[in-house]
Amino acid sequence: MTSTDPADPRRGAPADDDGADTGLLAPGWADSPVEAATGDRAVLQAVLDAEAALTRALGAPPAVCAEVDAAARAERFDARSLAVRAREGGNPVIPLVADLTAAVGEEAARWVHRGATSQDILDTALMLVAGRARALVLADLDATAAALARLAAEHRGTVMPGRTLTQHAVPTTFGLKAAGWLSLVLAARDRLAALALPVQLGGAAGTLAALDGRVGLLAGYAAQTRLDEPLLPWHVLRTPVAELGAALALVGGALAKIAADVLVLSRTEIGELAESGGGGSSAMPHKANPVRAALVAAAGRRLPQHAAVLFAAMAAEDERPAGAWHAEWQTLREALRLAGGAARDTARMAAGLRVHERRMRENLDLTGGLVVSERLVAAFGPSLGRGPARRLLTRACATAAAGGRPLREVLAEQPELRGVVGREELGRLLDPARYVGAAAELTDRALRAARAQHPRGDR
Amino acid sequence: MTSTDPADPRRGAPADDDGADTGLLAPGWADSPVEAATGDRAVLQAVLDAEAALTRALGAPPAVCAEVDAAARAERFDARSLAVRAREGGNPVIPLVADLTAAVGEEAARWVHRGATSQDILDTALMLVAGRARALVLADLDATAAALARLAAEHRGTVMPGRTLTQHAVPTTFGLKAAGWLSLVLAARDRLAALALPVQLGGAAGTLAALDGRVGLLAGYAAQTRLDEPLLPWHVLRTPVAELGAALALVGGALAKIAADVLVLSRTEIGELAESGGGGSSAMPHKANPVRAALVAAAGRRLPQHAAVLFAAMAAEDERPAGAWHAEWQTLREALRLAGGAARDTARMAAGLRVHERRMRENLDLTGGLVVSERLVAAFGPSLGRGPARRLLTRACATAAAGGRPLREVLAEQPELRGVVGREELGRLLDPARYVGAAAELTDRALRAARAQHPRGDR
Amino acid sequence: MTSTDPADPRRGAPADDDGADTGLLAPGWADSPVEAATGDRAVLQAVLDAEAALTRALGAPPAVCAEVDAAARAERFDARSLAVRAREGGNPVIPLVADLTAAVGEEAARWVHRGATSQDILDTALMLVAGRARALVLADLDATAAALARLAAEHRGTVMPGRTLTQHAVPTTFGLKAAGWLSLVLAARDRLAALALPVQLGGAAGTLAALDGRVGLLAGYAAQTRLDEPLLPWHVLRTPVAELGAALALVGGALAKIAADVLVLSRTEIGELAESGGGGSSAMPHKANPVRAALVAAAGRRLPQHAAVLFAAMAAEDERPAGAWHAEWQTLREALRLAGGAARDTARMAAGLRVHERRMRENLDLTGGLVVSERLVAAFGPSLGRGPARRLLTRACATAAAGGRPLREVLAEQPELRGVVGREELGRLLDPARYVGAAAELTDRALRAARAQHPRGDR
Amino acid sequence: MTSTDPADPRRGAPADDDGADTGLLAPGWADSPVEAATGDRAVLQAVLDAEAALTRALGAPPAVCAEVDAAARAERFDARSLAVRAREGGNPVIPLVADLTAAVGEEAARWVHRGATSQDILDTALMLVAGRARALVLADLDATAAALARLAAEHRGTVMPGRTLTQHAVPTTFGLKAAGWLSLVLAARDRLAALALPVQLGGAAGTLAALDGRVGLLAGYAAQTRLDEPLLPWHVLRTPVAELGAALALVGGALAKIAADVLVLSRTEIGELAESGGGGSSAMPHKANPVRAALVAAAGRRLPQHAAVLFAAMAAEDERPAGAWHAEWQTLREALRLAGGAARDTARMAAGLRVHERRMRENLDLTGGLVVSERLVAAFGPSLGRGPARRLLTRACATAAAGGRPLREVLAEQPELRGVVGREELGRLLDPARYVGAAAELTDRALRAARAQHPRGDR
Repeated sequence: MTSTDPADPRRGAPADDDGADTGLLAPGWADSPVEAATGDRAVLQAVLDAEAALTRALGAPPAVCAEVDAAARAERFDARSLAVRAREGGNPVIPLVADLTAAVGEEAARWVHRGATSQDILDTALMLVAGRARALVLADLDATAAALARLAAEHRGTVMPGRTLTQHAVPTTFGLKAAGWLSLVLAARDRLAALALPVQLGGAAGTLAALDGRVGLLAGYAAQTRLDEPLLPWHVLRTPVAELGAALALVGGALAKIAADVLVLSRTEIGELAESGGGGSSAMPHKANPVRAALVAAAGRRLPQHAAVLFAAMAAEDERPAGAWHAEWQTLREALRLAGGAARDTARMAAGLRVHERRMRENLDLTGGLVVSERLVAAFGPSLGRGPARRLLTRACATAAAGGRPLREVLAEQPELRGVVGREELGRLLDPARYVGAAAELTDRALRAARAQHPRGDR
Repeated sequence: MTSTDPADPRRGAPADDDGADTGLLAPGWADSPVEAATGDRAVLQAVLDAEAALTRALGAPPAVCAEVDAAARAERFDARSLAVRAREGGNPVIPLVADLTAAVGEEAARWVHRGATSQDILDTALMLVAGRARALVLADLDATAAALARLAAEHRGTVMPGRTLTQHAVPTTFGLKAAGWLSLVLAARDRLAALALPVQLGGAAGTLAALDGRVGLLAGYAAQTRLDEPLLPWHVLRTPVAELGAALALVGGALAKIAADVLVLSRTEIGELAESGGGGSSAMPHKANPVRAALVAAAGRRLPQHAAVLFAAMAAEDERPAGAWHAEWQTLREALRLAGGAARDTARMAAGLRVHERRMRENLDLTGGLVVSERLVAAFGPSLGRGPARRLLTRACATAAAGGRPLREVLAEQPELRGVVGREELGRLLDPARYVGAAAELTDRALRAARAQHPRGDR
Repeated sequence: MTSTDPADPRRGAPADDDGADTGLLAPGWADSPVEAATGDRAVLQAVLDAEAALTRALGAPPAVCAEVDAAARAERFDARSLAVRAREGGNPVIPLVADLTAAVGEEAARWVHRGATSQDILDTALMLVAGRARALVLADLDATAAALARLAAEHRGTVMPGRTLTQHAVPTTFGLKAAGWLSLVLAARDRLAALALPVQLGGAAGTLAALDGRVGLLAGYAAQTRLDEPLLPWHVLRTPVAELGAALALVGGALAKIAADVLVLSRTEIGELAESGGGGSSAMPHKANPVRAALVAAAGRRLPQHAAVLFAAMAAEDERPAGAWHAEWQTLREALRLAGGAARDTARMAAGLRVHERRMRENLDLTGGLVVSERLVAAFGPSLGRGPARRLLTRACATAAAGGRPLREVLAEQPELRGVVGREELGRLLDPARYVGAAAELTDRALRAARAQHPRGDR
Repeated sequence: MTSTDPADPRRGAPADDDGADTGLLAPGWADSPVEAATGDRAVLQAVLDAEAALTRALGAPPAVCAEVDAAARAERFDARSLAVRAREGGNPVIPLVADLTAAVGEEAARWVHRGATSQDILDTALMLVAGRARALVLADLDATAAALARLAAEHRGTVMPGRTLTQHAVPTTFGLKAAGWLSLVLAARDRLAALALPVQLGGAAGTLAALDGRVGLLAGYAAQTRLDEPLLPWHVLRTPVAELGAALALVGGALAKIAADVLVLSRTEIGELAESGGGGSSAMPHKANPVRAALVAAAGRRLPQHAAVLFAAMAAEDERPAGAWHAEWQTLREALRLAGGAARDTARMAAGLRVHERRMRENLDLTGGLVVSERLVAAFGPSLGRGPARRLLTRACATAAAGGRPLREVLAEQPELRGVVGREELGRLLDPARYVGAAAELTDRALRAARAQHPRGDR
């Protein structure tokens, strides 16, 4: 029975409650493919897979291998019990080896975990988990890239305000924006895809002493787990984990840029983009919030700190550090979840993004031509001199802004411009759509590169 | 059925698996009191408590309050379903309000969540969770402090090498070391205990508009939840959350200092301290690892990063930010768990710490007197001049170290010292136990301060 | 002569160039009061002050004290030479002691640095620097608070859209927003002001052994430096430094919230706020960028990371750690600079902030009444039932948004509302200015609290 | 004149003091090659180089190019003045363009900065600085690798205790440890070397509009700066900067691992390694501190937080973000300095490292054979069964440890072992040098890989 005293720390926590985290505070990754692939059950299966693969790599008799393979099923073990018993030795492999040994016959028991140390198994298992999760993240990044490529192609000529330091600067196109997102996503994707995920095997101090110094087992174990073969046992050479953290933070950063833009462009006053099926509110019926973008932005705030833990964990003293290694486990899992959840949400957001071209155009007109002031300085410079042209424009922009008048009108009144520019040419110069430079060409360039690197799919 | 293909991302993850985290990768907080107090079940109960308290604070009829109170039991709701449905609107309160409203009668349904926004409820719930968890953390910090005070008193005169930059410097006492740990722990404890944990209530934009502008509800809601009354609705004034993160990181830092010392002093070559019941190894029968210290050190590596997320989340734009708020939830929970788990482990470690006084003394003798070289410079300075005394000692120390000879012997051979110091006085000068300065007095000072601040208990 | 090869790493770096940082990449703190107070020159003076104060605290003869005081002037020493020579022993105090000793007579030389270790001096010096910098930061926070209080009072009734998740939610007032900023700033200010900045003195291992165990020197040294007296030597009890980092990050967070809001509200499409004298652009004459806010936002991104380094540095092994201490120095200085620069910029920004009330009102009208939809649900609920009222509003809002029509018009067509609400009452219900709840009262509450805590000034 | 009041914030800061940082608090990078290559003077030169290269890339007349090239010398400009004037627009390029334009004739002035935005120049300049600094970091990493390869080869057979969780585990060799360090350093080196450092050019919003949409300028500008050609203008696609931060953190992590090991193995009680010319102490003549390692460890604590800032800065809204970009500059410079300083110190440390083989051997014997207990379990397992063998060893180890007796002696008394193992074989089994597995072969493997990847030099 749970306590009914509101100040009681046990409130809401019955005796049998293990305090499980099932995603209630993590809408960013709850119900995502990566969530299940990284849960305790999946980790437990990976630990068992690592043990079973080791038995095979060691060359145990086929019957033993078969027996261990058959026993090594997560559903036969109790993850919570292992978690609790892991406290004694500080990692879950120690009790798991006891349980797995007990689950097989005497002959097989002699082969289980032979020559290995618990770090061999846990590191290998986390690489298996990372590999399985990576496939899911990559799939959602690919889906994201495909959607972004479609947006870029479709909006190759859709003019919108370019904004710098929150202010309208000069025009750009939504196609180029989407092409930029695409190139960011693909860069992060390729980095993640290219990572080596090596098997770990070295025994207590990484010398393979308990494995009779059989260096060939590195390749053999890699083959059995379908992981990469490392140059050396990497128990205290943590490049693979740090690189994984960096790649996931890079994914998070790429997706967070997209989210940041979607959030700005979805603002009520801007309204150039909208998530399809934006989230509702518990209080306000009219709201359609950019919920996907908010969740991705949240992941983008957390991933760099996870990467920082993993970089710092490289300073792993001795042949197994006291703390640095332990700090990696939950950090790596959460980083996978954050990146995977963000990739899932960005894929959906990108696929359903509504682009309001009319609002883009209206917003361009908001400043009455100020958005092309840079161009006018360049146009008038040869006649007036660059400095005078710049001063004239600054003055005219201020006059236009102060009076809420179109820049065209103000310019028409400037005596310095008489004879310099005709009414028609001024109109052309003031047309934002004629001042987007190489936006279309750059969009094409990014799309071509994407197709070249990632030939599959409709990108 | 789960996949049997080792490369399959769904490997080990059956269709009904929600990827729950039950502590398998977190021996630092698995099975700790804080774990259950911060799990999804406990969070769900806190959300329900926040809703029920609101109904009372609003002045609903007693029968309605009773009905809502009775309905607001976590066991009647499905946390996982809420987690999944939370994705639509981006937070779990939205589906919870639907479920709670459906669970009560029509009259009560009109009172549920009235005038509130989901952030009011979730922020209040997380403060409830934080308050409940804090009580548990404080209890373990108090137990830690009590054990450290005992160690400090008991070892007030236990001489050991003081070490700087990894090298023996001058002697100190273990009592002073423990007293320093004690003062660190109490400083962090007091900081955590002093934090305001305010109730949140403000409605959609923090104006209390949907609550008819009743400012008095801030006090009323605080009374119903036993949380603090805020000056203003703090939906985007995140001091309470940032301060909580800082206090938990401070706790982590204090405990990590203790762990760092225990790890050094437990080294095979040093052997001055040992955890009682050190953890075993899956491969090496002789090992007794300082497992508690390693887990605490791991928490100490992660907590600063969680605090950084919470500091950064203060930059919360508008009346509810798109991402900064969402980044807090899981971060705050994990920070509570890391601090709570580390407090639990440090309390156990401190209570059972074995102090090997003989090894401390043997280690002091390792350098053959070098550890008091500073003292000798001071003693010979008046006769020889400070510079010459220093040069003499530097030379003598080098000679002693090179030849593996006691410094006393080398010094006896120095012609400059003839007449300056007698054999007996040299012996006294070379006794590390006579060169611990105010160690005992400082120890007493710290113990007195601890008793003054925290009069209860056996400290 | 410098290299002219563009790929040459020495390009632009003549032989005598020490690579000084004079703020070229740090417009956030360049030319701020805190910059000079934390530069190498100021640090050097603080180190000298710490040495001179020690001589006085030790009770050296008045002539010696006078001689050391006179010698201890930064302009007589060469900071760069000390920086280079600091490399040998790993800290700048070692060469400084040599130089200072050489700068005074024989008698005074015997008193310089007597009984101290270099950490005593450097920690004390950094606390002196922190104390001097803190005074400057507090002054700018006070100026900020004063300006915010004026804004809050002046705009107590200025209605503007409340925005959540980037979307208009319900109305609020700019007064309440400014009052919230004020309360954030004052909370951070008080936290920073309340920090203990203790003197450090303990000798090589913190036992005061080389100072004959004179515990009273802690108070005496504190008196001579005007710093606080610590309970214990805190060479490895780093609470003061970690707390300083946390307080500075809290300041950064508070100011970053203000900056985040200013950035949003300055957007071209929103235009509710503008920095006076916004920054120009190298290319676009029309731009008036919110430069102060951008620089403050940048500081807000960096400060949490500095706090994280300082929290992590608490895990300081032994009696002086090998790395954790060294990681603090530059981190603490930069944190002081970032907070001080951000305080300076926010004070200026707040003092000159232009508030465009008309744009606030126009923006409120943008959604044609949607911003009060929450209110309408509450108003129609009693007659229609809460669920039906909500559904009606959701539908009406969608219709209004789709057709670009005022919500009032759409509502007038709803048959369900006939008899429920009259035209005039509907007008009142739709007036955003009548739906700001307790905004004014909450503003007053925050202003009263500010005056009570900080009675001086015009707040 | 400076203030003489010790509490005065201006104390030590004369009116003309700009608060320059010349390395007084940064012994880790003071006086390093990277310091000068990243100082304000070098940054200023890079900005000028970026402007001059742009003029050439644009195809200005040769005389103009020559004039701009000649003018673009850092020594002709005042970095401090630029730093102060940078505040107005928020970046130093704006005043620099004014100064550079003023420094050339009218014709050349028309070409300076044509079509560019200040971000184009500053990003390009920081890539130039990064490229120049990288060359220096790589040189020191190469020197480090060469020294480590020599250590690995020389100590291929030097047996030492492998340590896990601070406790002796099983033997390893110093050669393998050094080989592991080598592989870490080379992995980080290759990552850093492989980074693309692209030129930036896009104009105000990245469309090249003010450059007439000439996409070919990307290649042309790259050629003139010897930087890489980007796919797109990357003003808000910050992969290059984030990747740079990650690579530098990886370098820091690799070097911090080496430092962590050196620090442990230099401990007074362990004494297996010593820095040549260890740093002295201001108080204790006998000390020879591992100062280089401590400084490298300090850098290792700070770099991950700098990488975190750069990852987070990827979330760069719009076409130029308000804050995220500004947060990069100082962060990137400091990261280059930290990595470069650490590489310099590790190179020196590795080149001079003293390896005390005798102490390694003595330490191995400290546990009286416990260090090979794992081996004995394996050896006795076939006869006794693995469980009983393990229990026997656990008991014998405890007996040996408790009595301070050699394990050999205790084992000789065990009745279960009679007939199982002879005295001579027990001697062999207990010899740590015979239980190092594949240490030598793995060392060779790492050395071969290093030679294959990096054929030059004596590695």
